[in-house]
Amino acid sequence: MESNDDKFHEECGVFGVFGHSDAGAIATLGLHALQHRGQEAAGIVSFDGRQFYSERHIGLVGDNFTKPSVIKRLSGDRAIGHNRYATTGGAGLRNVQPLFAEFAGGGFAVAHNGNLTNAHTLKRELQLRGSIFQSTSDTEVIIHLIATSEKGPLVDRIVDSLNQIEGAYSLVALSRKKMIGCRDPLGVRPLVLGDLDGAYVLASETCALDIIGARFVREIDPGEMVVITDGGIESLRPFEAAKSRFCIFEHVYFARPDSIIEGTSVYDVRKRIGMELAIESPAEADIVVPVPDSGTPGAIGYAEQSGLRFDLGIIRNHYVGRTFIQPSDSIRHMGVKLKHNANSSVLKGRRVVLVDDSIVRGTTSSKIVQMVRDAGASEIHMRIASPPTRSPCYYGVDTPEKSKLLASRMTVEEMANYIKVDSLAFLTLDGLYRAVGQEQRNMEQPQFCDACFTSDYPTFLTDKENERASSQIATLVGAS
Amino acid sequence: MESNDDKFHEECGVFGVFGHSDAGAIATLGLHALQHRGQEAAGIVSFDGRQFYSERHIGLVGDNFTKPSVIKRLSGDRAIGHNRYATTGGAGLRNVQPLFAEFAGGGFAVAHNGNLTNAHTLKRELQLRGSIFQSTSDTEVIIHLIATSEKGPLVDRIVDSLNQIEGAYSLVALSRKKMIGCRDPLGVRPLVLGDLDGAYVLASETCALDIIGARFVREIDPGEMVVITDGGIESLRPFEAAKSRFCIFEHVYFARPDSIIEGTSVYDVRKRIGMELAIESPAEADIVVPVPDSGTPGAIGYAEQSGLRFDLGIIRNHYVGRTFIQPSDSIRHMGVKLKHNANSSVLKGRRVVLVDDSIVRGTTSSKIVQMVRDAGASEIHMRIASPPTRSPCYYGVDTPEKSKLLASRMTVEEMANYIKVDSLAFLTLDGLYRAVGQEQRNMEQPQFCDACFTSDYPTFLTDKENERASSQIATLVGAS
Amino acid sequence: MESNDDKFHEECGVFGVFGHSDAGAIATLGLHALQHRGQEAAGIVSFDGRQFYSERHIGLVGDNFTKPSVIKRLSGDRAIGHNRYATTGGAGLRNVQPLFAEFAGGGFAVAHNGNLTNAHTLKRELQLRGSIFQSTSDTEVIIHLIATSEKGPLVDRIVDSLNQIEGAYSLVALSRKKMIGCRDPLGVRPLVLGDLDGAYVLASETCALDIIGARFVREIDPGEMVVITDGGIESLRPFEAAKSRFCIFEHVYFARPDSIIEGTSVYDVRKRIGMELAIESPAEADIVVPVPDSGTPGAIGYAEQSGLRFDLGIIRNHYVGRTFIQPSDSIRHMGVKLKHNANSSVLKGRRVVLVDDSIVRGTTSSKIVQMVRDAGASEIHMRIASPPTRSPCYYGVDTPEKSKLLASRMTVEEMANYIKVDSLAFLTLDGLYRAVGQEQRNMEQPQFCDACFTSDYPTFLTDKENERASSQIATLVGAS
Amino acid sequence: MESNDDKFHEECGVFGVFGHSDAGAIATLGLHALQHRGQEAAGIVSFDGRQFYSERHIGLVGDNFTKPSVIKRLSGDRAIGHNRYATTGGAGLRNVQPLFAEFAGGGFAVAHNGNLTNAHTLKRELQLRGSIFQSTSDTEVIIHLIATSEKGPLVDRIVDSLNQIEGAYSLVALSRKKMIGCRDPLGVRPLVLGDLDGAYVLASETCALDIIGARFVREIDPGEMVVITDGGIESLRPFEAAKSRFCIFEHVYFARPDSIIEGTSVYDVRKRIGMELAIESPAEADIVVPVPDSGTPGAIGYAEQSGLRFDLGIIRNHYVGRTFIQPSDSIRHMGVKLKHNANSSVLKGRRVVLVDDSIVRGTTSSKIVQMVRDAGASEIHMRIASPPTRSPCYYGVDTPEKSKLLASRMTVEEMANYIKVDSLAFLTLDGLYRAVGQEQRNMEQPQFCDACFTSDYPTFLTDKENERASSQIATLVGAS
Repeated sequence: MESNDDKFHEECGVFGVFGHSDAGAIATLGLHALQHRGQEAAGIVSFDGRQFYSERHIGLVGDNFTKPSVIKRLSGDRAIGHNRYATTGGAGLRNVQPLFAEFAGGGFAVAHNGNLTNAHTLKRELQLRGSIFQSTSDTEVIIHLIATSEKGPLVDRIVDSLNQIEGAYSLVALSRKKMIGCRDPLGVRPLVLGDLDGAYVLASETCALDIIGARFVREIDPGEMVVITDGGIESLRPFEAAKSRFCIFEHVYFARPDSIIEGTSVYDVRKRIGMELAIESPAEADIVVPVPDSGTPGAIGYAEQSGLRFDLGIIRNHYVGRTFIQPSDSIRHMGVKLKHNANSSVLKGRRVVLVDDSIVRGTTSSKIVQMVRDAGASEIHMRIASPPTRSPCYYGVDTPEKSKLLASRMTVEEMANYIKVDSLAFLTLDGLYRAVGQEQRNMEQPQFCDACFTSDYPTFLTDKENERASSQIATLVGAS
Repeated sequence: MESNDDKFHEECGVFGVFGHSDAGAIATLGLHALQHRGQEAAGIVSFDGRQFYSERHIGLVGDNFTKPSVIKRLSGDRAIGHNRYATTGGAGLRNVQPLFAEFAGGGFAVAHNGNLTNAHTLKRELQLRGSIFQSTSDTEVIIHLIATSEKGPLVDRIVDSLNQIEGAYSLVALSRKKMIGCRDPLGVRPLVLGDLDGAYVLASETCALDIIGARFVREIDPGEMVVITDGGIESLRPFEAAKSRFCIFEHVYFARPDSIIEGTSVYDVRKRIGMELAIESPAEADIVVPVPDSGTPGAIGYAEQSGLRFDLGIIRNHYVGRTFIQPSDSIRHMGVKLKHNANSSVLKGRRVVLVDDSIVRGTTSSKIVQMVRDAGASEIHMRIASPPTRSPCYYGVDTPEKSKLLASRMTVEEMANYIKVDSLAFLTLDGLYRAVGQEQRNMEQPQFCDACFTSDYPTFLTDKENERASSQIATLVGAS
Repeated sequence: MESNDDKFHEECGVFGVFGHSDAGAIATLGLHALQHRGQEAAGIVSFDGRQFYSERHIGLVGDNFTKPSVIKRLSGDRAIGHNRYATTGGAGLRNVQPLFAEFAGGGFAVAHNGNLTNAHTLKRELQLRGSIFQSTSDTEVIIHLIATSEKGPLVDRIVDSLNQIEGAYSLVALSRKKMIGCRDPLGVRPLVLGDLDGAYVLASETCALDIIGARFVREIDPGEMVVITDGGIESLRPFEAAKSRFCIFEHVYFARPDSIIEGTSVYDVRKRIGMELAIESPAEADIVVPVPDSGTPGAIGYAEQSGLRFDLGIIRNHYVGRTFIQPSDSIRHMGVKLKHNANSSVLKGRRVVLVDDSIVRGTTSSKIVQMVRDAGASEIHMRIASPPTRSPCYYGVDTPEKSKLLASRMTVEEMANYIKVDSLAFLTLDGLYRAVGQEQRNMEQPQFCDACFTSDYPTFLTDKENERASSQIATLVGAS
Repeated sequence: MESNDDKFHEECGVFGVFGHSDAGAIATLGLHALQHRGQEAAGIVSFDGRQFYSERHIGLVGDNFTKPSVIKRLSGDRAIGHNRYATTGGAGLRNVQPLFAEFAGGGFAVAHNGNLTNAHTLKRELQLRGSIFQSTSDTEVIIHLIATSEKGPLVDRIVDSLNQIEGAYSLVALSRKKMIGCRDPLGVRPLVLGDLDGAYVLASETCALDIIGARFVREIDPGEMVVITDGGIESLRPFEAAKSRFCIFEHVYFARPDSIIEGTSVYDVRKRIGMELAIESPAEADIVVPVPDSGTPGAIGYAEQSGLRFDLGIIRNHYVGRTFIQPSDSIRHMGVKLKHNANSSVLKGRRVVLVDDSIVRGTTSSKIVQMVRDAGASEIHMRIASPPTRSPCYYGVDTPEKSKLLASRMTVEEMANYIKVDSLAFLTLDGLYRAVGQEQRNMEQPQFCDACFTSDYPTFLTDKENERASSQIATLVGAS
């Protein structure tokens, strides 16, 4: 959908409900609320005590899971679901989660938000032992590890498997008796627990609890595994203790502004980011204009702190489809105009502070700046609600390779020239840490994963080091 | 799509381009920019000097007109297009415009924004003469009138036909030699003229000129017909002179905020509406919160005028699909939560001014108010950016029947109780006229059509008076 | 489907049932039995006392009308249906019959087997009066004639209309009160009446009565119109008396061998054709081999008369789809092999009498002969179960233009050389008349329409004479 | 398609071509010629030296593999394909063959005609080792055996795997370097080798060679494996020597009559069957009538031997679709009438010998007999071109369970009463052996697999003995 919008993209959202007679419909609503975390495809697996049911579709939840027939097929009082972002090499339906396998001991479904940094290496080993892969998803590695584990009971097999993997993951899984939720030891990706009239709910964000009217109970801790059965919920700590490294970019951009993360409102954090930005990088200007929608809370904060007027100088068209055909008599900045239009009555003759959440390749920023300029802005002072993004993410976020990141090859001044603004400023790393409630970044033991700003990756990157391994992939291909 | 959102809905947007080698792609972009005027279906007819090409699809422009094969089929240097809103009795593809007919004199396509108030009466007469209708669209009446007109040249036949119809219309039509644009004598619906590197462009709103980089030339006048040929543009005034009665609700809600209407920015009008509202109906409160997105400019105006803080207390989920299945254990206010979620960190403990554009049935308003209350707002003062809507529209807007309009059966105080707010105020009619730049409403000769507020309909309503006639419709049915 | 098989093709089959609670399902079965008369598309219109229901689909009855949902939608105790052959210029769904129109007096559906020879001329006149056409089907001319007739009651309007048309037609029509069946004055196309437990049935052939277990009552007479209502059946003779000219090619090829036409079994006629052929053109040979399936009864008759052995020297593959891709390393005679394969154990070393029903372009015949030769036949004596087809049909049969007909440009001897057989013989015209039970052809007043053999067309060919008129067609186009 | 026709059904046809620039198109034609061996689905995998391409579709070859885009995607000079019959528990696309897996050593595709009798037992063992299955096809067992084999080179791994399986199989497989063909040691299913201008071709039957103009080289021997590479063809004999037990029912019904099996024409065998039947069980009658199409060669043989007249007393409608809706006013014998209609002019007043290939449940036979009786036959003497089928097949043929087989619970006399014929006779087992060219059945070492007549199964039936094992199936499920 929006794959050309020059943003980082979260690759997934997960959801689970256990003990509710409408589990399938509940999961559909939960995934709808998490749609911002992945728009390519969605899937739900339910279980009714005898049988598993699976519905997986390319496209939005609201387009594919709203027919009564679909919900009716998702029978049972427990269900897990998954939203998936459109990644480049994506291979159609067989990569849509939840993945499901019948083990010798019974059925097992898993939905995964995150990314493993040793998936290729493990896959190669599994293939040499004779495991045949059906998808190109790293989630399937987890399934084969569980299938071939020599431990006995399912939970032990899962723990055995997770101890072999590196990277970031928030998992929701479903077996015949259990729903399991788990975050990696660093807790890079979010996962929260809710309660809906006695039913247990797991979700990537609290906004998915709100839509179904569930009560927010608590976050799943980094390194925690919860095992939910008819008998209740049990909490395990199967991993070595580690300091949490939550993804700070969830606060900047990924999470929905109405979600609560680590006890803090995402909207409040983003407004504080705007305020910090106004303090660090004020501007002589007439109005503060957001690049909607992601820049809006920051712009409100900036305006409030600076006393400048907040105005909608750019109007967003929310009807967006696939790639439009570019007329051969090329239209200037057509791509950006499909989604944004300058509101010239606001901009004309004004000195504008333009607030956006981040700059990735810089392509969209350049076009938006030009559009604002064409609409009559006399000066443009761009303010970015995060530090420069210099490094790719290996933990479940779709980012361009390093060389494509504008901040990896230019100074701020060069970037200002490139996108043609009168001034450009990024939030400092410490400003960002302050906005999320820290005094400053702990350089020894950073409180967050901020590798996209700092290149300080909190796990091994085994596959990256063994890239040879990745050239031979063993896959049992499904549909043509 | 959003047919349950309890709003008035514009039924159509029209677009045309003449003299551009990429006419098909240009029309696609234009319709995309006008998507807010109709989401059910879209169609484009082009002509390449020898043949007409037609593409009509149920669904969004961005979903159906972005394949190269579709654009390639729309060959030629002229094209007209149409967006259609999902009306209740809609009968599938055969009602999707532009409608096309081969007359004895050659092909003719027409796209129509508006509604005729004597369509049924005319249809009945045409059927008795032996005309067979293929659609249930009133636009087809115009086509049959032209086909059976006893005048000679096409333009004369069109004028002859338009002189027989009552109601509101902005038309764009295409014949082998001409593109024709026309507004009804009262100019109820908008239509503008643009220039794209020498090609003529017609569009419902200026935002459709912006997306293609066309220059805004002027509005087509009420009662004006422009005839565009290879030789240039000619302006005709074929109707009796009349005072303009532009639809004031285009300013309130229908038009995109970045469009310019009658020389005024829609966004500016909406901010001024908010300011008038703050002057007329101030509130003791902490924050001003819009019901997004339509309430946002009004809320910004209200906040600016009142000095209260503007904050996003409701977050909108822009991923919306068809009707979701309501779980049988009913979720409170599920419908509204699919699109809106309360941002509790903003609302908790606050006295809130809640700004929306209008109240139609009141169902959504009640749910939003309850959601805001549940999120912790201590007081809710609702301010509506228009007068009470008491009467249905017969000029191309989808409105419920009169008895379903909350304001037609309750006083403002009763409405406040019904939707459970601490206070409720609507903008006055004069306040609205002031916001659009008039001193006050001219009671003798109102400057606008404001019948939805006043029941003062500017045309005859022949069909309504002859409702018997409408029971027998003559239609040649297409696909099953 | 089989449009490349170098045969004449019947363009339509019609069916109707009145007074049976399962009218929709009955019509589906009837059309399935008539599938050989048209494979491109099928449609059914039913009426339940209040409303008409229409289902029209591209493809086979067995593929599109077997879902319970489709049959359920075809509510009511009366229904008419139509099978359509894939004609070249066919314009998709809008030409699929039954066509349906809402007249001022109510709904009207019609299904038509045949072809009008003055359709273009009438269409032109209707367009000049302002009628707008939605299809390119000549059946729609009839509908517009009825709509614009100045007579009063429906039956009078129909008679008025049919009196203006020339050509061949067997019609089945449905209004709110009546089912009407009608054959043109010459009775070129068949139409029979049946009785199913008191319900009236109309069908192109008796095989459609057999499948539903209906009793054959009688043929509708040439020039007869039957009007069926709740009160019973009434027979009208609204046309000037004329001598019957039934299509003799129905006996040769179009009709199903298990149908009874004019009191005679089609299978028996075809066997007698084979016998006549054996008498007229015997051959020194070992075996008689049919080109299946159409040549089979003739071959059985030839074998029986001649005393030669009947054997299946060619095996037909009944699974046929759209046009296969020809490998670039061209496979010899690929087209014919998709449907036929030589059975070499039968053919090797044998002198073969090869029996086919007709030769059209000669392309398939050449390939079959070569295939039989390649399989080892020592001699091939081709015997054709009809006279040479020298002229196109204008009465509802898809035939190539005259210059493409092999027999129109070659003598029999030249044809034998062209298709490379050791001998070639066609049935004589008198032989054919004998086979259908006549002593001989009455040269003054032929008993059949045999224009494809004789160019003796039994009606005016107005359109052909006014071909200028056909260049301008007025059509209201439906879906893109 | 024809799943209700009360016949045994071959479950598969296989095809392969190696060394031809149009491999994809060639494979499509080959599968089209083998369509009678499986109509549910078809698939082709090709390889172009770098990459494998897979196309798998539900439905007929002629409906799904004829688009240029499909053939274009099947790039490369080698391809294998598979037709699949509609089995009851079939699980959609993931069971459509060829199955494809990426092993550690590269890609591997396999297409399989036959059935394993220890598949469940092996699957259970593989799952306990951690193999995850994606389909419910027993073919996947072979793939997992190869993946987990501890042998080195691919051919050794395949042999290792095949040595563990029991049952019947003719395989065609494709790796990066090789095309492999293999028949089980008993040679139950057919597989032939052909030559197309130097390219190697493997196919279930010779009719697939005919359609592409390939030369028949020889049959693959029972227990033979051929390995085809760029260097040529190599023949291996990796299994213990065994006596051949070819499926005798291939001669009776499965194979196409124009195929050559074991040096004999299938058509000739079927005519000889009819002759044997006439000798063993003559009848006082007027005509011999086949139940078309499968009974036709036998009926021709019977007529030739007996001197009775051969006539088409039943006409087959070759347009067959999915299950039609039975009207609630039940039509007598509707099911059988969809495909067959009595030709009453042939049957009326006649004593009829009715020849069919086999009686399975007896349901269809009863209805056909009744239909023939209703059409006026005075006597019906049914003659069956095979011995009574008393036992299910476990070697790749879809048969009802034993208790559903009419011959397993009735004597011939009881059967005659049940289907209401004047006399009934089956071919004797020795008669059948004579017809296929043997003096008689060797009771010690039968020359064929005739288990459906004799219950003499030539392999172990391990799964049947371990049915407990089959209740737990381990499957990695693909699409929902």
